[in-house]
Amino acid sequence: MSNPNRIVVIGGTACGPKAAARARRCDPGAKITIIEQGDDLSTATCGLPYFIAGVIKNEDDMVARQPDFFEITMDMEVFTGTRATSINRQAHTIEIDNRETGKSTIEYDKLVIATGARPAVPNWEGKDLKGIFTLSNIPDANAIRSRLANPESKEVVIVGAGLIGLEMAEAFCARGLKVTVIEALGWPLPALLDGEIGAQVEKHLRSKGINLLFGQRVSGFIGDKDNNVRKVVTGSGKIETAMVLLSLGVKPNAGLAKDAGLDIGATGGIAVNEYLQTSDPAIYAGGDCVEVVNIVTGKKMLAPLGSTANKHGRIIGTNVTGGSETFPGVAGTAIAKVFDINVGRTGLSEIQAREAGFDTVTSLVPTFEHATYYPGSREITIKLVADKATGRLLGGQAVGPGDTAKRIDVLATALSFGATAQDLANSDLAYAPPYNSALDPLHNAANVIRNKMAGLARGISPAEVEKKLESGEQFVLLDVRSRTEWDNMRIEGEQVKLIPLPELRRRLGELPRDKEIITFCRTSIRAYLAQRILDGAGFKNVKFMDGSLAAWPYRVVTGTK
Amino acid sequence: MSNPNRIVVIGGTACGPKAAARARRCDPGAKITIIEQGDDLSTATCGLPYFIAGVIKNEDDMVARQPDFFEITMDMEVFTGTRATSINRQAHTIEIDNRETGKSTIEYDKLVIATGARPAVPNWEGKDLKGIFTLSNIPDANAIRSRLANPESKEVVIVGAGLIGLEMAEAFCARGLKVTVIEALGWPLPALLDGEIGAQVEKHLRSKGINLLFGQRVSGFIGDKDNNVRKVVTGSGKIETAMVLLSLGVKPNAGLAKDAGLDIGATGGIAVNEYLQTSDPAIYAGGDCVEVVNIVTGKKMLAPLGSTANKHGRIIGTNVTGGSETFPGVAGTAIAKVFDINVGRTGLSEIQAREAGFDTVTSLVPTFEHATYYPGSREITIKLVADKATGRLLGGQAVGPGDTAKRIDVLATALSFGATAQDLANSDLAYAPPYNSALDPLHNAANVIRNKMAGLARGISPAEVEKKLESGEQFVLLDVRSRTEWDNMRIEGEQVKLIPLPELRRRLGELPRDKEIITFCRTSIRAYLAQRILDGAGFKNVKFMDGSLAAWPYRVVTGTK
Repeated sequence: MSNPNRIVVIGGTACGPKAAARARRCDPGAKITIIEQGDDLSTATCGLPYFIAGVIKNEDDMVARQPDFFEITMDMEVFTGTRATSINRQAHTIEIDNRETGKSTIEYDKLVIATGARPAVPNWEGKDLKGIFTLSNIPDANAIRSRLANPESKEVVIVGAGLIGLEMAEAFCARGLKVTVIEALGWPLPALLDGEIGAQVEKHLRSKGINLLFGQRVSGFIGDKDNNVRKVVTGSGKIETAMVLLSLGVKPNAGLAKDAGLDIGATGGIAVNEYLQTSDPAIYAGGDCVEVVNIVTGKKMLAPLGSTANKHGRIIGTNVTGGSETFPGVAGTAIAKVFDINVGRTGLSEIQAREAGFDTVTSLVPTFEHATYYPGSREITIKLVADKATGRLLGGQAVGPGDTAKRIDVLATALSFGATAQDLANSDLAYAPPYNSALDPLHNAANVIRNKMAGLARGISPAEVEKKLESGEQFVLLDVRSRTEWDNMRIEGEQVKLIPLPELRRRLGELPRDKEIITFCRTSIRAYLAQRILDGAGFKNVKFMDGSLAAWPYRVVTGTK
Repeated sequence: MSNPNRIVVIGGTACGPKAAARARRCDPGAKITIIEQGDDLSTATCGLPYFIAGVIKNEDDMVARQPDFFEITMDMEVFTGTRATSINRQAHTIEIDNRETGKSTIEYDKLVIATGARPAVPNWEGKDLKGIFTLSNIPDANAIRSRLANPESKEVVIVGAGLIGLEMAEAFCARGLKVTVIEALGWPLPALLDGEIGAQVEKHLRSKGINLLFGQRVSGFIGDKDNNVRKVVTGSGKIETAMVLLSLGVKPNAGLAKDAGLDIGATGGIAVNEYLQTSDPAIYAGGDCVEVVNIVTGKKMLAPLGSTANKHGRIIGTNVTGGSETFPGVAGTAIAKVFDINVGRTGLSEIQAREAGFDTVTSLVPTFEHATYYPGSREITIKLVADKATGRLLGGQAVGPGDTAKRIDVLATALSFGATAQDLANSDLAYAPPYNSALDPLHNAANVIRNKMAGLARGISPAEVEKKLESGEQFVLLDVRSRTEWDNMRIEGEQVKLIPLPELRRRLGELPRDKEIITFCRTSIRAYLAQRILDGAGFKNVKFMDGSLAAWPYRVVTGTK
């Protein structure tokens, strides 16, 4: 029998254990070693906010596999509490340092780097004060839980309105804290969402009592004499608090790879080819420590997620045992439960698409998750972004209390095949009243894109309409809803006029032919039809407001006039 | 101004009104006429079972658009209570017959046939007896509701376990009736599902008290002297009942088209090209009355669904006003709520794939809808069917109390691009613990396909294992679950042996090397790993049972041994 293939895996959270387990299934004779600096393997770090919230009750629930599984069932050697300190590529060895037994050397034929990422912490003054936390592993979560058990903490400041920041806003809220979120940019999840969708998340967070401070940059922290944090310093002033969570994204742990002379990408992640091989063919890397290809732009990006880490693990496990599988890249899909709404996105936002050089066409469709005549249908709003010249889909976002996850997954799948709006509009999605409408919200959103490309529909965003109203521009903002809807809630302004859609054809004489007319309704279905009626009647400057009132985050008047 | 384009639409349920409305939006000047034999336009016939169940309260909820909408807002001429009796293609006219005003003639430039389908009713003796119903429109539903208001009806026999049959089984159950379903084939939804998935639906229906009679053919009905149905006659005997629902699928209403000399396909549906144009270029047809292309086989099929009808309507509305849109075909996607489970499918079943000449490889994966450490995760089982030579996905089925709709929609989207199992396994689906596991059930199901293609995994279906047990074949059925799981529930047989997975490596000596060994566990994850351990130890004839106990519909023993 030949010498066994010696596979050493550095990192035991997601990619590492997956790579090791896959390698074992592919090669029963391999000698497999896992090095993990923490105490546990296979930890479900994505569940940490729910563990802190109390939704997940036991720490053990966060550990997918007990060490026994890897040692006995999978026949591997496992070193926990052990750091890998250096790689000697010439000798094919790594140096490790165990918390109790100290330093030693391990030989490898194939090495897997799955060192993950760490929370990004700017070099702010006072960043090391007591009471300032980050969240990336079970010890972090336990530290926060201990702090919450301290009755002194009645409020918390979260710096950064990204995924972890918002999940933790909900978790702290569930634990009875008063929560303030500070975000340098203009809306929640700014790296993932465009403003219109972000505005809906913002509205929901405010309705839950979260204090949101946008456009404010933190510059440091002030502590007391015992080094406990007492204030957050921002460009606009100081906020008193005894507890801070920094959620500013993560940075790849690429130091070990860099020190060994492996290529590091411009993103800061370890550079790998499609086989997830580093610049040293004997060394593979995957999970949060590497950069990945964005399948929409073809460019490298960081997309640290447990889903990608698991896929990487399987591919690496195959390839270190003689296989040759490839990873195509990611669409940048993400989803989060934010209190009672589900917000997801995939591909490029409109902002990202423009930054990438695309001329975009978008749709913004507020609608319902399934047939409204079937009980319990909840609202969702979908935004699609496409390339104006070809109709190729570039990305999408969905938000609302209804089922957005399904639409994001369909869209992510479509993106991976370069689907156009036409492809999406004709996809054979499952229809029965408890699950969908005859046309899925994605079909409608794709058709709006097609109507705009065909020149039939001309949209204008709520933000642009608000700008026109604010500047006192002369135009007609034509509400085509019913009188009852108008009485309940309306946009006020001298430019606003009500003509219910059924009356429009016979009241055309009331509208000026020399001014711009912008139609709107509740969701924009009637508004688009009104635009077409006016087009047909010879009006030359008519648009409809994308998303209409359902996407209008600005001031409205409610109650009978 | 030139003469307006005269568009006449025959049929007012789904495709017809959609075509008319789209035509109006595309061509404000067109003269558009809709002919409908019933009283309402735009009826949501897919909701009828829920209307009968009482889940949908009002008949009005089933009518999406009031006639005013079409006449006033959409500026169309609408004839309800009016049948189209013939088409004169030379003269470009149709003859119509109004219930009150009688016959007249209408001229068209473009004609749209959207005549739908009717329930299939075999020429059984007694089929016209009172108390025998079909369900395809609001009058049918009202007739059934009236009958249910009659306290004589305490039981009902449903003939045909298709989508409507099962939806109505639940509806009748909700109305307090004792329900019997008779199906000629071997399991529920036999035209849509393979046996293993059908078995799970069957189990659930039986748990709800539905009396299921499979493999029984109805030959006729016996009535009393007042022509009320009293008995259903089957090959196995007679079943007493005062009420029968025939749900044997539908037949396209292609008679008008056929009489006009238009091409009819071998399926019985009106033949149309990709523009949904019939063999007469001035006449378009869509919805349940036409045949469509199956995108997996490329062959023509009937797929009568409101979702397709609506897509057809939009395309026809575009094309009758000078556009040139195409319809790519359908994947054969379908979904149904069956009491507390969600059962869906898309593409080809394994049976259909084999009939179409494919050499198939399948996976059967019982799992959970999202991370199990996040509360409330419900079970789902996924079956994938792929082409053995290429890994191209051919279809899939999903069943269980969890979110199957999402997986079916993702799969339907993937099928429309000719995706392989590898494509699916690496798709960037949205992951956060409330929505998914790091690897989606579809990823796992795709990976099982890949493991089988790579020769790593060798599956055997529960049905084949049961056959071996029944015939007393000599083999080892190796349960690798824990002792506790075994004590709670197990398969009994002299061939069955328990070796918990963690003990397997050190108890290899207890297993014979000259016999076939089939491993199983609860979901087949451990069973596959056990197979790989035995492979690695030199055993030459080892398989794992696909889906294991979670997919085992046969006899088990429960309780402590």
